[in-house]
Amino acid sequence: MLKRNLNLNLIPLEEALSKYFSKLKDYLKPGCEEVPIDECLDRITFSPVYAKINSPHYNAAAMDGIAVVSAATIDACESNPIELKIDTNFINVNTGDPVRSPYDAVIMAEDLIEHNENTVKIVKSASPMQHVRPIGENIKIGEVILSEKHKIRPIDINVLLSGGITSVKVFTKPKVAILPTGNEIIEISALQEGEEPKEGIIIDSNSRMYEAQVKHAGAIGKCFAPVPDDYDILKDTILKAVNDFDMVLINAGSSAGTEDFTVQVLREIGEVIVHGVAIKPGKPVILAIVNGKPVIGTPGYPVSAYLSFVTFVTPILSVLTGDKEKAVQNIEAVLSEKITSSVNLRECIRVKLEDVNGKLTAFPLARNSSVAMSLVKADGFCIIERGCEKKEKGETVTIELIN
Amino acid sequence: MLKRNLNLNLIPLEEALSKYFSKLKDYLKPGCEEVPIDECLDRITFSPVYAKINSPHYNAAAMDGIAVVSAATIDACESNPIELKIDTNFINVNTGDPVRSPYDAVIMAEDLIEHNENTVKIVKSASPMQHVRPIGENIKIGEVILSEKHKIRPIDINVLLSGGITSVKVFTKPKVAILPTGNEIIEISALQEGEEPKEGIIIDSNSRMYEAQVKHAGAIGKCFAPVPDDYDILKDTILKAVNDFDMVLINAGSSAGTEDFTVQVLREIGEVIVHGVAIKPGKPVILAIVNGKPVIGTPGYPVSAYLSFVTFVTPILSVLTGDKEKAVQNIEAVLSEKITSSVNLRECIRVKLEDVNGKLTAFPLARNSSVAMSLVKADGFCIIERGCEKKEKGETVTIELIN
Repeated sequence: MLKRNLNLNLIPLEEALSKYFSKLKDYLKPGCEEVPIDECLDRITFSPVYAKINSPHYNAAAMDGIAVVSAATIDACESNPIELKIDTNFINVNTGDPVRSPYDAVIMAEDLIEHNENTVKIVKSASPMQHVRPIGENIKIGEVILSEKHKIRPIDINVLLSGGITSVKVFTKPKVAILPTGNEIIEISALQEGEEPKEGIIIDSNSRMYEAQVKHAGAIGKCFAPVPDDYDILKDTILKAVNDFDMVLINAGSSAGTEDFTVQVLREIGEVIVHGVAIKPGKPVILAIVNGKPVIGTPGYPVSAYLSFVTFVTPILSVLTGDKEKAVQNIEAVLSEKITSSVNLRECIRVKLEDVNGKLTAFPLARNSSVAMSLVKADGFCIIERGCEKKEKGETVTIELIN
Repeated sequence: MLKRNLNLNLIPLEEALSKYFSKLKDYLKPGCEEVPIDECLDRITFSPVYAKINSPHYNAAAMDGIAVVSAATIDACESNPIELKIDTNFINVNTGDPVRSPYDAVIMAEDLIEHNENTVKIVKSASPMQHVRPIGENIKIGEVILSEKHKIRPIDINVLLSGGITSVKVFTKPKVAILPTGNEIIEISALQEGEEPKEGIIIDSNSRMYEAQVKHAGAIGKCFAPVPDDYDILKDTILKAVNDFDMVLINAGSSAGTEDFTVQVLREIGEVIVHGVAIKPGKPVILAIVNGKPVIGTPGYPVSAYLSFVTFVTPILSVLTGDKEKAVQNIEAVLSEKITSSVNLRECIRVKLEDVNGKLTAFPLARNSSVAMSLVKADGFCIIERGCEKKEKGETVTIELIN
């Protein structure tokens, strides 16, 4: 009898996630590092950031014009212009210039008449601190500029600098090892431009996709060379990866093939929490922990590989990066045709959205998880929950938008 | 009389944009470059990408099991099991293995009974190409994988690789020179950690914000050292920048200060299309063209600097990068208080959104464009169009959401 781990007992998605995360939570420890201000864009603050200086740090002219002693201007009006002498009762100021005692107000250039080198006439009184930016108007020393777990935006960099901040404590980017497996897998670099691989040989198209998904999640992915179907080599490679990285993804070799060593290896060197989830695509996923690190085995078909990342890897990276998961945007649409699905599985169906005489209509695309192009063309997903076996043509369904 | 360019004649925003862009359109020429597949994430395709090979490039087993000759299985049923001999009328296959003539169908391992080394029994017939992925099922050679002006996502990288693509033609990232101006401006690197600058000295907080805004727009920003208020130095710096970069931003020195040389310099070395737009914040913006390159002078106050980038720079970068501008998301809210605004200006008011007994309510924040913190705290903008001078308390207004 050939050795096959045929019958996965599939557990519901919610159960799989809660089982895995309740085990993981003691192990997921986000790291912290200090980065210079000019490298902090899009990083996540690890703790609140407090201003080190006031902004402005002196009373500053808010307008171009003249600085005056407000008390000396009270009588000024159209019928009673007051003449001021330079350096005696006024000085010229540009925006940003200090307004020092005895001066306590600024009159805009536009409001001045007969403005000469040494004298100027005003026809309106100035109130104290008029057009003067008081110390700390923008930021007060000690004030919280950014809260923790805040993704730093361009405008945040502006206030950080004005608050005298030169470096920021942020979450360390977790490192993710990406291990393609299988004797049949080669890297595209092994081919000439446009060269077709031999029959039975497959270009590794998932590792680079994973590297990109990891990057979008705010982490750093490292693609390994394809690991052959050899128990000991696979074991050694995973053990090394677990040592050097915060998380390990093992792609392909997670289902029932005669050469699928992944789950056996993981059982030997760690704990397999879940093997097989009642979702389609993505059934044969493996959720394991080795030396306290999350190790996830994902199926080889591109669509399964993509979706199992979104479903199982993204939430883990969200904990490690401190970044919130992007909220899924939903939209209502009517189905162009009837869809049937297994009552035992939660199925994620790719759909294209089109306006059909005023009605947003969802057209199901290829459901075959080997057809990655259908995911490229898709506008969203129609989820058919476990326990539901069909959606009727014309039925209004909720579509999870992609992008 | 001191030299001041006091009275800017402010033109409406739409007029400013159309005047500037009708002049610019002949000059804005996006560039193209070829990047390796592992550097193409988030880049914009310059032209459609066509598949170089089929995926799969051979008829492949879609399941683990056995490959059979479908014709030889027609009589199989529960009451009439058929025994097959290995290498005579079946071979073992794993997912992805080639299915070569005479074999033309795959039977899943799960459907086999008495599966031994050399024989297997089947109780169900196999239809031709059952569980076989035909050549080109995912991607056909010559097929358009990605259209032009498409921002490359992780899943796109997957299909590019399966289609035999090793490099992609993308829009070149435009280079933007960022020139802070003013004797009073210093870089934070000139200070000790937490050191307060002297009175009248201001930390350059806009350049790094601009560098970040440029990066988010898909371009490359280069911050120059602050340029002193010296006509000839400013002129030489701009001319050099125009030579080496695709676009130049000059920050501060765009209003009516006695030392505001920017507009004079730009008039001498190029064409000033617009100086002064009827918007608040951001009035004194300068829209110019020098040697065919867009050169934009923006006000020094952080909020004005930020908003003039969004209003005038982003659309230009969108043309040069090939990337679509992100659609602004709007939401309805009621105003917490009355707002009055100049009838001659389009004012952009920062608001904080809060739920007040079930009603989404917009609370106006500081309108002073020197208070960058109010933009950090803001959830969105309430636009008061030119020609409108007030919004009443309790009035329902449209809020442009920030990010």
